[in-house]
Amino acid sequence: MPGITHWSSPGFMAFFPCSSSYPAAIAEMWSNAFNGAHFNWICSPAATELETVTLDWLAQALALPSCFLSGGETHGGGVIHGSASEAILTVMVAARDKYLAARTAHLPDGEEKEEETWRLRSRLVALGSAGAHSSTKKAAQVLGVRFATVPVDEEHGFALQGPALAHSLDELAAKGLEPFYLTTTLGTTDVCAVDDFAGIATALAPRAGTAAEVWVHVDAAYAGSALLLEENKPLTQPMAEFHSFNFNPHKWMLTTFDCSAVWVRSRAHLISALSIKPPYLRNQFSDGDLVTDYRDWQIPLGRRFRSLKLWVVLRSYGLRGLQAHIRKGVGLCESLETKLRQRPDLFTIYTPARFALLTVRLAGDDAEQVNRRTEALYEQINAAGQFYLTSTVINGKFAIRVCTGVATVQQEHIQKLFEVLVEGTEKLIGAERSAQSPGKDSMKMNGVKANGEARDSLETAGKASRNGVAR
Amino acid sequence: MPGITHWSSPGFMAFFPCSSSYPAAIAEMWSNAFNGAHFNWICSPAATELETVTLDWLAQALALPSCFLSGGETHGGGVIHGSASEAILTVMVAARDKYLAARTAHLPDGEEKEEETWRLRSRLVALGSAGAHSSTKKAAQVLGVRFATVPVDEEHGFALQGPALAHSLDELAAKGLEPFYLTTTLGTTDVCAVDDFAGIATALAPRAGTAAEVWVHVDAAYAGSALLLEENKPLTQPMAEFHSFNFNPHKWMLTTFDCSAVWVRSRAHLISALSIKPPYLRNQFSDGDLVTDYRDWQIPLGRRFRSLKLWVVLRSYGLRGLQAHIRKGVGLCESLETKLRQRPDLFTIYTPARFALLTVRLAGDDAEQVNRRTEALYEQINAAGQFYLTSTVINGKFAIRVCTGVATVQQEHIQKLFEVLVEGTEKLIGAERSAQSPGKDSMKMNGVKANGEARDSLETAGKASRNGVAR
Repeated sequence: MPGITHWSSPGFMAFFPCSSSYPAAIAEMWSNAFNGAHFNWICSPAATELETVTLDWLAQALALPSCFLSGGETHGGGVIHGSASEAILTVMVAARDKYLAARTAHLPDGEEKEEETWRLRSRLVALGSAGAHSSTKKAAQVLGVRFATVPVDEEHGFALQGPALAHSLDELAAKGLEPFYLTTTLGTTDVCAVDDFAGIATALAPRAGTAAEVWVHVDAAYAGSALLLEENKPLTQPMAEFHSFNFNPHKWMLTTFDCSAVWVRSRAHLISALSIKPPYLRNQFSDGDLVTDYRDWQIPLGRRFRSLKLWVVLRSYGLRGLQAHIRKGVGLCESLETKLRQRPDLFTIYTPARFALLTVRLAGDDAEQVNRRTEALYEQINAAGQFYLTSTVINGKFAIRVCTGVATVQQEHIQKLFEVLVEGTEKLIGAERSAQSPGKDSMKMNGVKANGEARDSLETAGKASRNGVAR
Repeated sequence: MPGITHWSSPGFMAFFPCSSSYPAAIAEMWSNAFNGAHFNWICSPAATELETVTLDWLAQALALPSCFLSGGETHGGGVIHGSASEAILTVMVAARDKYLAARTAHLPDGEEKEEETWRLRSRLVALGSAGAHSSTKKAAQVLGVRFATVPVDEEHGFALQGPALAHSLDELAAKGLEPFYLTTTLGTTDVCAVDDFAGIATALAPRAGTAAEVWVHVDAAYAGSALLLEENKPLTQPMAEFHSFNFNPHKWMLTTFDCSAVWVRSRAHLISALSIKPPYLRNQFSDGDLVTDYRDWQIPLGRRFRSLKLWVVLRSYGLRGLQAHIRKGVGLCESLETKLRQRPDLFTIYTPARFALLTVRLAGDDAEQVNRRTEALYEQINAAGQFYLTSTVINGKFAIRVCTGVATVQQEHIQKLFEVLVEGTEKLIGAERSAQSPGKDSMKMNGVKANGEARDSLETAGKASRNGVAR
């Protein structure tokens, strides 16, 4: 089919998955049959109420701290957005308004308070680690606030550490700036690093509960699905100190795009930042605070009946079914890592398999040469069209990302990818060697009258370059 | 079906429609079958390219000025968002960054420029008329900029007029504030007013092309579909002076929710405000500016293949089919207006049928009494459940809104609604009269031992209140 990239193909190991399933597809059909804008409870009560119920179930399934439940002690709750970028923008707005209100609470309403609020606005800084997704920087750009990056290092697996955060906060404070928001990540886009949540909570403890409290958002857009597995649940324990959490069931939890679940520990901060009440949206149920109007939890007004999709997925697969799917993706990536480690002559695992993602570089001592070769291999594989991979560059090192979370990927595809990587690398190195070998007349390789042996090499290399190594 | 509001029911005359159709439903199934995040051209080229093509078609069908076409002289183009609220937020960000850049262009890069930018940020004002949708105020709230309302009056049908805008601009300038953005509306939510575009262009002409140019966004979220009709096309002519235009095919153009089309006259302003380029999103096609990456035209990263839905709707109905649908809604509302005008003893048309929307109040000289009675009638009809209407309050006047744009509405439903309005009003006035009549002992109506006649009246009133007038 021309021009279509098949995100559900077993050859799709790029980016993160965008999963689909028959239960979700059926639910989408129903959702479209119940078509409506569903912005308020009164516009279709079931659309709102099912969302509250399924997000409470899901929060429990992920072992999120109870403060994120709709009935929790801090009046939290969940809402479905279209994407993690919207989630981050939305909570950043709430964080900003909460921060400004707290920092000016000592002033009486009036001109002085307003002036101080404007002064503070110009000093606000949103933070994310160097591994945080670009959506945090984009949200800061939209809000017109500063953005600062907290460095991460290879030694700690590119995960944000408490001391680095504390150092950044001190530096910003010394410049008279006001850090108000942090995105911390469970499963960074580059390498699926998991930030040191406990260390982050410790670094922020001196500010917690004061006017300078920093709103911490956990971006688990992809890897949040892995919290369904028992062994990962301890990761959520420090999140009881944080303010919001987001993951995308549409990435790895078999829920057709789009479905991005967000929880906040205090819905009041969202609502006070985002609520607008014109007469044509008023009704007795909303005015009486009897119901949830999700339009006040998000940027758009209208909303699709997405909770139906989530409900059908949860009920069709059950937790055990979803766990089996996640476990399969994790296991496939681990098996690829095992295979790659058996060829240390060709490959170096740059970051090991975690949450079904690994990154790999070609082996070698010359970092520049390794970069060049790894990129050449990457371009060849993508040009061939059998597998679709993405790459990343961290600390100047080019690495190929392989994500095995797509539901259709089986062991045979992992084996094939491994063969493709091996053959491609061997050809690449072979072609370089033959190009360097004086006996094969490297000058003539570019000409028409190469001798037979050199032409063979050239043709082989040419074929690899055009068709990749996936023969 | 419990808890579900049927937005496609012929009894649904509330808000604006949220339309659906079989072609759109089939296209949604295909879109879900091609499930993916489609954020870049390279993620599925057809998803991007079909969007560019269908939005050019649609712009031509609406007779938008050629500056909004993708091949237009100012490098404009269209993009599909989920809702008009996102559209307004997105263009407001572009407007803000364009304004700040222009107002500081005379300063060299450095501290002075940065300080001036922060100073200007604290003075920015986004504008909308009193009839503009609340999403403009919400977008200003998200961006953390001021919002000012330009008054409208009943004499001009609640449409924004050039002189009122000029007056507001002068007032803001006198306070040292910086108006940078205006939402003007084709079909306000309250009453479907159409702002005086030519007058607005005249009022803004002194600023056009200077550093103080105000970005004008046309919000035609609902009524934009009416531009498909030949007689409405002249409305778009003054828009050649404006910067962006938005309408929602999911409202009145038979395209299942969500599908909100936005055009800009200069895509560069969107892209420079919203672009972020991390390594894992880079690729040779995007880097070479060969392709459109719609992620840089919107807030979210991921995007659904919505253009497929729009394409199928356009190809299935054709322009004539869509025109017939729009014409039918317009005609039904006009016929309701005709009926209501035949009962001047009961009703006053508050704003006449325009784009299939009218607003009506009960007749009477005592404005407070009319408000009370109109609201009572409105509550009764909604409580009955046969029709779903919304209301509005403008200049302290409560009015019932009736929108006849849902595809299933036929003449018989208009007739039935008219009867319900007549019966309800007559009962309401009758009940008030009997309550006021001394012979019927109004005091005892609240007690247990009312006489037979009074109890009958009470029961009738009670029944009307519980079940409405739709018996």
